[in-house]
Amino acid sequence: MYTVCVRDHFMIAHSFRGETFGPAQRPHGATYVVDLELRRPDLDPDGVVVDIGKASECLREVLAELNYRNLDQLPEFAGRNTTTEFLARELFDRVAVRIEEGQMGPNTAGLDSMRVTLRESHIAWASYEGSLA
Amino acid sequence: MYTVCVRDHFMIAHSFRGETFGPAQRPHGATYVVDLELRRPDLDPDGVVVDIGKASECLREVLAELNYRNLDQLPEFAGRNTTTEFLARELFDRVAVRIEEGQMGPNTAGLDSMRVTLRESHIAWASYEGSLA
Amino acid sequence: MYTVCVRDHFMIAHSFRGETFGPAQRPHGATYVVDLELRRPDLDPDGVVVDIGKASECLREVLAELNYRNLDQLPEFAGRNTTTEFLARELFDRVAVRIEEGQMGPNTAGLDSMRVTLRESHIAWASYEGSLA
Amino acid sequence: MYTVCVRDHFMIAHSFRGETFGPAQRPHGATYVVDLELRRPDLDPDGVVVDIGKASECLREVLAELNYRNLDQLPEFAGRNTTTEFLARELFDRVAVRIEEGQMGPNTAGLDSMRVTLRESHIAWASYEGSLA
Amino acid sequence: MYTVCVRDHFMIAHSFRGETFGPAQRPHGATYVVDLELRRPDLDPDGVVVDIGKASECLREVLAELNYRNLDQLPEFAGRNTTTEFLARELFDRVAVRIEEGQMGPNTAGLDSMRVTLRESHIAWASYEGSLA
Amino acid sequence: MYTVCVRDHFMIAHSFRGETFGPAQRPHGATYVVDLELRRPDLDPDGVVVDIGKASECLREVLAELNYRNLDQLPEFAGRNTTTEFLARELFDRVAVRIEEGQMGPNTAGLDSMRVTLRESHIAWASYEGSLA
Repeated sequence: MYTVCVRDHFMIAHSFRGETFGPAQRPHGATYVVDLELRRPDLDPDGVVVDIGKASECLREVLAELNYRNLDQLPEFAGRNTTTEFLARELFDRVAVRIEEGQMGPNTAGLDSMRVTLRESHIAWASYEGSLA
Repeated sequence: MYTVCVRDHFMIAHSFRGETFGPAQRPHGATYVVDLELRRPDLDPDGVVVDIGKASECLREVLAELNYRNLDQLPEFAGRNTTTEFLARELFDRVAVRIEEGQMGPNTAGLDSMRVTLRESHIAWASYEGSLA
Repeated sequence: MYTVCVRDHFMIAHSFRGETFGPAQRPHGATYVVDLELRRPDLDPDGVVVDIGKASECLREVLAELNYRNLDQLPEFAGRNTTTEFLARELFDRVAVRIEEGQMGPNTAGLDSMRVTLRESHIAWASYEGSLA
Repeated sequence: MYTVCVRDHFMIAHSFRGETFGPAQRPHGATYVVDLELRRPDLDPDGVVVDIGKASECLREVLAELNYRNLDQLPEFAGRNTTTEFLARELFDRVAVRIEEGQMGPNTAGLDSMRVTLRESHIAWASYEGSLA
Repeated sequence: MYTVCVRDHFMIAHSFRGETFGPAQRPHGATYVVDLELRRPDLDPDGVVVDIGKASECLREVLAELNYRNLDQLPEFAGRNTTTEFLARELFDRVAVRIEEGQMGPNTAGLDSMRVTLRESHIAWASYEGSLA
Repeated sequence: MYTVCVRDHFMIAHSFRGETFGPAQRPHGATYVVDLELRRPDLDPDGVVVDIGKASECLREVLAELNYRNLDQLPEFAGRNTTTEFLARELFDRVAVRIEEGQMGPNTAGLDSMRVTLRESHIAWASYEGSLA
């Protein structure tokens, strides 16, 4: 199995609800350094998993939707805790839609799966991975 | 599949037996930077894989049992080579017991698997991963 | 010249005023991974620049004053842009006060200078350094 | 499952054919920082996945075959785009041959699988993983 | 003294002349991860060392002049060994010209000095620093 | 001013004396990832600060004197706390002797200064820097 990964980041404000979150219930924020991994069993006709330029561009556009935002004010997250795990899944879904729409080029039918990892500090990260079939 | 990871470290002395270990047969030591990864297919009611604070505390307590120790002198390791691989498994087992005992909170029934990685230098690491079912 | 460095982090929300900041004028946030460096020409009687445990504790306490906060709502920052550079200086001043008060132990008279670095992402950081004399 | 990883690097020149590669069609080059991961379900009689010294030596020898080379001039790559993904697979195959030949010692029958990752910059990497059975 | 740093990278082919370079006399290449540090004693009216967006853009444009090139074929480097040290100085000079031309905005008169660091692998880097007065 | 840096590591056991060290008074150990920086105002006739191969070899030989050792048992450290700061200075002195003896080649007269940094974990490091004149 081949994997290709590209990295970018975004910076947001948010707060959490629930006593388990302690001081993180207060409005605060985070820098998320994001790794987008794409996997396929065989390379495409160009000898790549996916065009790395297109993958980087796709990731940048998806992150731009959230970058420099207060997530507490976005309607799509109303009533949700935008934890690192939750955001990993959210980004996974948004990238998957763009792949289906052809934004990563015409050869993505062979993609097997994808993983999105958000590093929130030097000592903590979370990810979501799933099939692209 | 969701994954959450927390990082900490511990510093120990030890020595290895067996010609294959060369100069590492002499008493020496290591800093191990430890990554504890926990995986589950669905998020818990708080929207997390596990409470990151509890996971960090659990890891810290397990590492404290070995931190600043000469592993050659600990009865539980008598006759064993405390290689990086071996220690990864040892920490896996110790964290697993604490999860069963409820130290990471009441919602850990949904946890699927765990991985413990020990980075011993900038050019070498080892890990052990297994099911938590 | 000897240097010792300890690392910790904090997570905040804020916004900037001024067209030069573009989308960063919106409420957003950041994780800052902080490196606190202390320098002295000769080691103290214990053979260290400063007690690394005390330095870590001091840094943790200073960061706790800002951690999980919306900096836009803190009176001490009213009317100021809490840029990475600005925060580096702010943390420098707060740590310096604690050193003077003895929080890093009784042997800090020999300290020469200090540097505080805030890493805001994998591609950007800022620092402030100055004399402790 | 246990994993052990060793890291090394190599530096090469090459160029790509195909409009999808844009400016990378020009002769350029790369530093690849290489992670070699080896996995097995149980430790060998010495308590390791594989002798880490032998694994490092094997990786170094395989990389030496390509290090400081213009890949466009190597006959084995004639007509191929030596993308990061392609090179990950190439290194996988070369290491696998050496394992079969006994270069990593006599206890490698228990090895389950292998992964080779090439980091080409701070924001991009690719890997190939496969079975060793 | 305040410092701000932005990071980017470029990928080139080249070769060295002189027996001291051993196998690096052959055509090969490198990825250089570049850190551009700018220093000033006091912050500008916006509360920054320099506009981080402009600094990133300036670095990207300077690196684009060399990115995906065979340095052996560029007239400006004829007869020169484009070592990591040499390239650090070359980039320093090119960025300095752009600062003078106003590309980093109108408030750069207060800049004190600059440092350019090129990381060529996980185990080696070189830099050049100098005054901007 | 030009700087070149090479990285290597060593692994040792030791213990500290003095209540200030708390649990580190017990026999334990550390991995030290070592950065050796060399500085000079002008490049040598080969266009480098120093031959990077010779610098790496020199660092490896100096570290080999301590690698896989219990520092408490080495006569040269009798009665001393081998703290990270202390070891940074010790390595500085040992490398400086080798430079004087010509181990880094014949062109080192132009070297200005040197810095040795020991990273003991992901959250702590120490260094010693001084003149080579």
